[in-house]
Amino acid sequence: MRTIKLTIEYDGTDFNGWQVQSQGNRTVQGEIEKALQTILKKKVRVYGSGRTDSGVHALGQVAHFKTSSTIPADAICRALNVNLPRDVAILQAEDVKRDFHAQFDAKRKVYRYTILNRQKPCAVNRRFCTHIPYALNVSAMRRGAKDLIGQHDFRSFVASDPAKCGKEGSTIRRIYRADLKKRGMYIVFEIEANGFLYKMVRNIVGTLIAIGARQCSSFSMQNIITAKNRTMAGDTALPQGLCLMEVKYA
Amino acid sequence: MRTIKLTIEYDGTDFNGWQVQSQGNRTVQGEIEKALQTILKKKVRVYGSGRTDSGVHALGQVAHFKTSSTIPADAICRALNVNLPRDVAILQAEDVKRDFHAQFDAKRKVYRYTILNRQKPCAVNRRFCTHIPYALNVSAMRRGAKDLIGQHDFRSFVASDPAKCGKEGSTIRRIYRADLKKRGMYIVFEIEANGFLYKMVRNIVGTLIAIGARQCSSFSMQNIITAKNRTMAGDTALPQGLCLMEVKYA
Repeated sequence: MRTIKLTIEYDGTDFNGWQVQSQGNRTVQGEIEKALQTILKKKVRVYGSGRTDSGVHALGQVAHFKTSSTIPADAICRALNVNLPRDVAILQAEDVKRDFHAQFDAKRKVYRYTILNRQKPCAVNRRFCTHIPYALNVSAMRRGAKDLIGQHDFRSFVASDPAKCGKEGSTIRRIYRADLKKRGMYIVFEIEANGFLYKMVRNIVGTLIAIGARQCSSFSMQNIITAKNRTMAGDTALPQGLCLMEVKYA
Repeated sequence: MRTIKLTIEYDGTDFNGWQVQSQGNRTVQGEIEKALQTILKKKVRVYGSGRTDSGVHALGQVAHFKTSSTIPADAICRALNVNLPRDVAILQAEDVKRDFHAQFDAKRKVYRYTILNRQKPCAVNRRFCTHIPYALNVSAMRRGAKDLIGQHDFRSFVASDPAKCGKEGSTIRRIYRADLKKRGMYIVFEIEANGFLYKMVRNIVGTLIAIGARQCSSFSMQNIITAKNRTMAGDTALPQGLCLMEVKYA
């Protein structure tokens, strides 16, 4: 048996997220498994580095599968791209050590969140950013982002369903990088960590937006982290601004 | 009567271009006229700076219309954005001098064309760029782009139907700027001129792609311009990479 690692780009707009669902909704994992079955003539289970929600995009999702096929990895990549719908692209397929696991071996993940901050609505880029029509204080948001760096208990940013926290319910994660940049009318937030809790990035971004809008003027990001209480943080930001950029294994 | 100037952004993917068609297809002009009729309770004709083809986008298309309504321009802008579909946004509505004409008063237009140059297909940005899977020589393309600058007879880049050339069939135009930049795996071409012939930008880009792929190694852009012969130039590049960035009136 070989283990093949896939690097995957997708436009999440028309998917019900990454993970195969019992209802048979259209998912990225489901489409890749369908294409692999066509190519390998066998049912194959694909394991992602983690799920992404409906509407969330990826420029560098990683997954793996096992196969006894002798088709070279490059040829599998080409065949997948021929068989997949236009909103999923395989950027790389490579043989890796047999016990490689896309989820359990992941050391770091990088997410980007894009906000369009202008009064007028967004037409061209509307599927790939969140439109905030009121003025945001970018300096305040940048200060808030800096406070995220380091190892913290991120319970304040955990989705309400504790079963979805993973890692036996531990809510401690280490943030290596949290950059907020203004590019024209866009605000681009990039965050790198050793792992993310369910909806953690979107809850952090919702909190940064609240800070930028001075809805949380009395709370610093530090206070919100220390509180370990979901109700202290901002709303969950919309999925379409979020993109999984990279999964790092070393 | 007042004259109102509109600055318009649209995602051209799901439109049959800018211009209203007798078959009643979905067009940007048609959607704006429909929304204006709802707001002003009157049939209004909207005049664009020029049409864009099906699949072509705009971040700064300009149009005008005349009305005897007393609704402030800002309120018309807000009402339009409420009534328009999500793939069109009005960025500005302003009162201008009564004889302003979006097409005849335009002094310069700026177009951008985006190419994704990598072997692997494109999922996330596929509606807003053209994917070229073979290697392009960007230096050769940049030299070709430079040769476009100045006043030339662009007959080599004119669509086959001469009735669509405009300006009494003159094919002379002045190019002020033709920049080609590499940004990661993207090649971004921006061109500014006092006007463009029908499909001229897409024919120029198709020629630049042919030059970059060394399909035209014996022909320089200069030779192709001098030939005044459509068959000398490259194919018409696909519409989805093209975006009307700005229309200048001074």
